[in-house]
Amino acid sequence: MSQNIYDDNDFFAGYAQLPRSQHGLQGAPEWQAIAAQLPDLQQACVVDLGCGYGWFSRYAASQGARHVLGLDLSVKMLEQARAMTDDPCIDYQRADMADLTLATAQYDVIYSSLALHYIENLTPLMATLFAALKPGGTLLFTAEHPIFMAASAPDWVTAGDGQRSWPVNHYQQEGQRITHWFAEGVVKYHRTLGTWVNTLIAAGFWIQHLEEWGPSAEQIAAHPALAEEQMRPMMFILRASRP
Amino acid sequence: MSQNIYDDNDFFAGYAQLPRSQHGLQGAPEWQAIAAQLPDLQQACVVDLGCGYGWFSRYAASQGARHVLGLDLSVKMLEQARAMTDDPCIDYQRADMADLTLATAQYDVIYSSLALHYIENLTPLMATLFAALKPGGTLLFTAEHPIFMAASAPDWVTAGDGQRSWPVNHYQQEGQRITHWFAEGVVKYHRTLGTWVNTLIAAGFWIQHLEEWGPSAEQIAAHPALAEEQMRPMMFILRASRP
Repeated sequence: MSQNIYDDNDFFAGYAQLPRSQHGLQGAPEWQAIAAQLPDLQQACVVDLGCGYGWFSRYAASQGARHVLGLDLSVKMLEQARAMTDDPCIDYQRADMADLTLATAQYDVIYSSLALHYIENLTPLMATLFAALKPGGTLLFTAEHPIFMAASAPDWVTAGDGQRSWPVNHYQQEGQRITHWFAEGVVKYHRTLGTWVNTLIAAGFWIQHLEEWGPSAEQIAAHPALAEEQMRPMMFILRASRP
Repeated sequence: MSQNIYDDNDFFAGYAQLPRSQHGLQGAPEWQAIAAQLPDLQQACVVDLGCGYGWFSRYAASQGARHVLGLDLSVKMLEQARAMTDDPCIDYQRADMADLTLATAQYDVIYSSLALHYIENLTPLMATLFAALKPGGTLLFTAEHPIFMAASAPDWVTAGDGQRSWPVNHYQQEGQRITHWFAEGVVKYHRTLGTWVNTLIAAGFWIQHLEEWGPSAEQIAAHPALAEEQMRPMMFILRASRP
């Protein structure tokens, strides 16, 4: 059973204050880069893995998806998603990615935003996702970048000359990382980018795009605080397909 | 024209002292991991791109390769390679990867060890390598890892608690990095792992394996100085094929 930190009251309250919680996809600076990788959603059967408030599920429906299955472990997130959704083609269900089952060869697109780094064992999940996609189907996800997650104290350091850096250590030591983010004891799992890529390949996927997301010059001009996201990647976007 | 730092006298003299210069492939701790990704070389036509002393060219010949084309920009390196080689199936030639030409669909394996980070424009080179491979052929290379190369001052930092870290900054700023390594003004080109992967995909390659190399427990036991290579990856190994 995965940790259900999103049902923690403090976590849920903090998460509700994020721009991406309040403004949806447009509140997430990586959304434009993700959207550029999305296949056509017209008539698509879609899974939204770790759907949270359901922003992407509703977007997929608005783009003509035939059916969207939004899955989350958090009861509070699903309540919020259902409260915000009035579309019969979206079905929200509670599910733990650690023991997920999905119908075989039923889906055109499986999407996941910043959820898969909560998963300890990626191999069985990737086998499930591969089997759930139709041939030619697309897996598109974001996850926290291993550069962001690896270190024992993941926070900016400033050198004597004022240069800010993000520290990397214990990079090869894959496994649990425990941080404070809205609540104490949030459990994530660090793995190298190589492990992410090779686990997908071993499951049968073709790698189509890997992007260590950073903000555009236009985004930084509009939101100067994003400049630090050029210094080190906080997340990556990966697109793969079932041949 | 690429920088020809390997013909600099100080650089050449310093490079000659490296374990990998003196002991060949067995002197390179990543060799076991590379060898695990090599296809069968029996009867193979092979390119060794940035062949240096020719250690891999001779290895390929010893494994039954039909023909090995060892290419390097450095006259000194090629002299050394020829002096160490007595095998008519190996042909050393001087070439600049920046304007490389190769026969079309002639090669089974293209190999390159720690050379491609000296290349400014990866796209035309990858088109050349793709065209030079036979369908089903393999590209296998190592390059310096962007985590290792990105920072303005790429060297260990020690926090107040004694934790050593490798600093990452300017990660999204691809392009030239100038360092001192045996000689002043060694020019390398930083690009994100995503750019490496996407450039290969755009050239037509299938990504088969990505490994951010780190030492095994056995290697650290035998050579304790390797322990720091667990903290951050210095290089990556990438295997791709022409479909």
